[in-house]
Amino acid sequence: MLLTSINHPQDLKKCSMPELYALAEEIRQFLVENLSKTGGHLAPNLGVVELTLALHYVFNSPEDKLIWDVGHQAYVHKILTGRRHMFPTLRQYKGLCGFPKMSESEHDVWETGHSSTSLSAAMGMAAARDLKKGKNHVVAIIGDGALTGGMALEALNHIGHEDKDVIVVLNDNEMSIAPNVGALHNYLGKLRSTTNYRRAKEELEHLLKSIPAVGGKLAHLAERFKDSMKYLLVSGILFEELGFTYIGPIDGHNLELMLDTLKTAKQTKGPVLIHAITKKGKGYAPAEADSVKWHGIGTYKIESGDTPKSSPTYTSVFADTMIKLAEEDERIVAITPAMPAGSGLLKFGERFPDRLFDVGIAEQHACTFAAGLATQGLKPVYAVYSTFLQRAYDQLIHDVARQKLNVIFAVDRAGLVGADGETHQGVYDIAYMRAIPNMVIMAPKDENELRHMMKTAVDYEDGPISFRYPRLSVRGVKLDDELAPLAIGKSEIVREGRDVAILSFGHVFEIAEQAVELLAREGIHPMLVNARFCKPLDVELLSRLAQEGYDLVTVEEGSVTGGFGSAVMEFLAEAGYYDIRVQSVGIPDYFVEHGSVKEQRQEVGLTAEQIAVRVRSFLPVTKGVVEA
Amino acid sequence: MLLTSINHPQDLKKCSMPELYALAEEIRQFLVENLSKTGGHLAPNLGVVELTLALHYVFNSPEDKLIWDVGHQAYVHKILTGRRHMFPTLRQYKGLCGFPKMSESEHDVWETGHSSTSLSAAMGMAAARDLKKGKNHVVAIIGDGALTGGMALEALNHIGHEDKDVIVVLNDNEMSIAPNVGALHNYLGKLRSTTNYRRAKEELEHLLKSIPAVGGKLAHLAERFKDSMKYLLVSGILFEELGFTYIGPIDGHNLELMLDTLKTAKQTKGPVLIHAITKKGKGYAPAEADSVKWHGIGTYKIESGDTPKSSPTYTSVFADTMIKLAEEDERIVAITPAMPAGSGLLKFGERFPDRLFDVGIAEQHACTFAAGLATQGLKPVYAVYSTFLQRAYDQLIHDVARQKLNVIFAVDRAGLVGADGETHQGVYDIAYMRAIPNMVIMAPKDENELRHMMKTAVDYEDGPISFRYPRLSVRGVKLDDELAPLAIGKSEIVREGRDVAILSFGHVFEIAEQAVELLAREGIHPMLVNARFCKPLDVELLSRLAQEGYDLVTVEEGSVTGGFGSAVMEFLAEAGYYDIRVQSVGIPDYFVEHGSVKEQRQEVGLTAEQIAVRVRSFLPVTKGVVEA
Repeated sequence: MLLTSINHPQDLKKCSMPELYALAEEIRQFLVENLSKTGGHLAPNLGVVELTLALHYVFNSPEDKLIWDVGHQAYVHKILTGRRHMFPTLRQYKGLCGFPKMSESEHDVWETGHSSTSLSAAMGMAAARDLKKGKNHVVAIIGDGALTGGMALEALNHIGHEDKDVIVVLNDNEMSIAPNVGALHNYLGKLRSTTNYRRAKEELEHLLKSIPAVGGKLAHLAERFKDSMKYLLVSGILFEELGFTYIGPIDGHNLELMLDTLKTAKQTKGPVLIHAITKKGKGYAPAEADSVKWHGIGTYKIESGDTPKSSPTYTSVFADTMIKLAEEDERIVAITPAMPAGSGLLKFGERFPDRLFDVGIAEQHACTFAAGLATQGLKPVYAVYSTFLQRAYDQLIHDVARQKLNVIFAVDRAGLVGADGETHQGVYDIAYMRAIPNMVIMAPKDENELRHMMKTAVDYEDGPISFRYPRLSVRGVKLDDELAPLAIGKSEIVREGRDVAILSFGHVFEIAEQAVELLAREGIHPMLVNARFCKPLDVELLSRLAQEGYDLVTVEEGSVTGGFGSAVMEFLAEAGYYDIRVQSVGIPDYFVEHGSVKEQRQEVGLTAEQIAVRVRSFLPVTKGVVEA
Repeated sequence: MLLTSINHPQDLKKCSMPELYALAEEIRQFLVENLSKTGGHLAPNLGVVELTLALHYVFNSPEDKLIWDVGHQAYVHKILTGRRHMFPTLRQYKGLCGFPKMSESEHDVWETGHSSTSLSAAMGMAAARDLKKGKNHVVAIIGDGALTGGMALEALNHIGHEDKDVIVVLNDNEMSIAPNVGALHNYLGKLRSTTNYRRAKEELEHLLKSIPAVGGKLAHLAERFKDSMKYLLVSGILFEELGFTYIGPIDGHNLELMLDTLKTAKQTKGPVLIHAITKKGKGYAPAEADSVKWHGIGTYKIESGDTPKSSPTYTSVFADTMIKLAEEDERIVAITPAMPAGSGLLKFGERFPDRLFDVGIAEQHACTFAAGLATQGLKPVYAVYSTFLQRAYDQLIHDVARQKLNVIFAVDRAGLVGADGETHQGVYDIAYMRAIPNMVIMAPKDENELRHMMKTAVDYEDGPISFRYPRLSVRGVKLDDELAPLAIGKSEIVREGRDVAILSFGHVFEIAEQAVELLAREGIHPMLVNARFCKPLDVELLSRLAQEGYDLVTVEEGSVTGGFGSAVMEFLAEAGYYDIRVQSVGIPDYFVEHGSVKEQRQEVGLTAEQIAVRVRSFLPVTKGVVEA
């Protein structure tokens, strides 16, 4: 094992070329073996083995800054920077993070998890270097999918304009998580097929030589050549026009070529873009064959590639119900920002190919595009993860809510997300959506209610409406045949009780119910309410509870700052119910790291036990004293 | 006057060519005269007179959709669609909106105020048309500045990929609000200088004809021509590579040419981009000479172009203080997304050219770029309007706060903004920032405190910190010579009092003070607190107030939903101070339309009288009864 001798990037520099190739093989084996037990982003990392080796061979991390866009492809980088031994704990509670993490290593100079941020970060680091008269290199490694994100394009524009010494390695694997979308993707495809600039130029020269050149005919020749010339010369022009020196496309698995190219780039003034073609899943047959499935994977059997059968999820229920609803209502269309598989919408797209829009990694455009569709009477469903909807916040306010357009927000991965950790936690959506006028905000207590809420959303005609659901398996409740819209702003009393009411918003109802069972054993019987709506609130029920002197415990898998609990407090204050006590259970005010959802809930106190503690704390004071 | 006979776009179609030219003249006079009395976006509208006439002549609004990016250049469109008579009320309370507004006219098919949304909207309308088998045209009119916004690029990518029939009119006036920034801008500059494609091709043919062509020499010729060929053929290639048919550049003030070009575009399949060159302020000498100043203007004298002298603003105090701080601390750099003048940073840029970064209309990139600078130990100050910071919400969470980087957010135009109205209200920042862990959120009671808060921000070393200030003239208080950092999370008791405490957050302190004066005349003496911090809250003072039995009236110029008042309620609930009553004065849960700030405050109840009412409402109930 060569790999055991590599504990720092410096160790790499002593390796011969054959040793580097051997290392690449060992790293692939290491990844396939380790991830078979932990799960993780296998395919992306298998694709960047040579690329990462070459980067650490040519550059001096951490003086030179290596910035990994999205960050899920930084495993090889972690292996080469002294964290090999931590891989058995990958993405586990208190274990190795699945993304770059400054606290783990000085070689992680930038943290990420969301796409398309690396070029902006690189520009920042390069500008700081120049102001401080530093000499280090700044290298961003970005995928072709991430390049379609608006902020990456904004950064390209800025870097090109400022003519900064920034090296961009475009890791072009012809797909991000899903097959890529967009004109830029087509353009990259064209570049790939031109093999390379030099070869194209040679072909042009050959062509020119072979044609007898007689005076005025050259004019026609120019005309006839126009298209092919453009085709040839266009190689990299898009990037060159933005001020970059374009090199490529080159084979990203060819180590010698990668080393040579990076050395060239290192010596080039101004921004450079290296266009490297790689294959996701490279070297592991199952991952090569289906890199969408193997993008992020759970445990698997190495020989067969078999994975444990997955149980139905909230997402799959959403997906099935979308098809059912769309069959009945032709106004329904679906929009996904590069997550057709993750959102469950692949099946919808097969059934209604004209009614699914995969816009690529472009959350902002997706939102305003939906608004545009809604102006024409359609019912767009924007399926988006809670954490990525943050990217479309202004569009949600300015384009959708302000114009009161009927856009439906299907907010997936809401709440704690487990192994992806703090970059992906879906815990802010309640707070950030609640401040927006005209929004309706729902969350279902289980998968059956999710379906009714979808029907509610489709039938609603008075502006934007959202429902949030978790990255979890379903509870397994019975699914109703008929979908019936819920009354807007009305909650459900699941169990009558006394003294205290537990108001649960969303899928945490499961926990609230457990708390009620725990308390029942002690002879304590709080009322249990499934809130259903955070906005508008069920002010009728809240008024009743306040008048009858209930104290309230609110439960949500979202930030307690500004969340559902705050909505309840605001109402009580506004309505003048000052003698009602409220305790809010939810996500506290810090970023929750990776682990299982169960561990994360335990850490933040979002458990049945914790809810029971809150209920009990209200009981010693008899109501009479408080009400005076 | 021809103009008086134009009450609908159809009326335009009866006009002869000379009449159209006469109309253009009349419209310019109309704009210059009317806006001299009301103020408004003069220069942008003078630039699009012919363009707008041509659009309404060639297309049939509202069947054909005209979508105005940013929207402040839609005055001519409003004049031509029956709203000429409303111009004396432009941007006034209950008057004509300065942006497209669906409720004003069926010809306003899309509302906006923020930049770069038009292409996404157009794609939505075009996709809806195709699903419904419609035949109408969809035309987006977008400036060269807005084109650098990430979401516009995301939309270009999507439109090109889907090959939709969308017509984009690139209104290239060589600057947006400020002179443009970015590689894309350079590219457009190059296009402008090629005059047009046809001419370039002729030049190429001429060149080829003039050179004796002898066998193998052609190879060298190709080599020598490479640059010039590329230069010539590049015309529009960037757009053509993205799937657009590129037409231009053409003179946007040449009506015949515009009409012909639009007719051609109308008949072209797939996406078309018309590159029209226009001049901001065209036809009014002062505006032509200084289109930055005349972009948005108050009242003025028509002959001289003289404008009333402006008084010092919070923004100008911010700008002066930036220079003072930067002189003392070389880590300080400033970032603006295309607002060097609006943010007051022009002077800073003159003094420290290397330390001001104007990144163009690119709020997302600006934020993460700042994060990148901060990783290297600099102190980036991101000066951004509250309403535009919404565009960088994910970057604020994921890139800045999560990494706990020392980025300073100077949140300008916070609170009610007056004439720009609902698209620009800066009323959500408190709510949306408050939910983010690691954030420090400040707001000064006056311009002097703003300066101390800036010093506080620069000295703070524990993550992101923000201060918000309004689009208002200063109060005129004395400015301290020495800048001293404030204690984090500590508020200021301005006046002791009894029974009730008014907690004021930010510049509304002026109103709170007036309320205290009103009440004093009645013998009521509430405590007056300048909160200074919304996060972290001054829990020590709040605890004292709670223990001493004060009721609380919170005051903020921000959304009451999730705002400063909610923060206070959350603390009281968490700490178990259940017998304290809170009333929250701020912006209610709807979009506040244009008018003066005074009128808007009156409408929403953010007045001294209203605060006094809230204080009085607490008084009849003696504390004893509540506390029992």
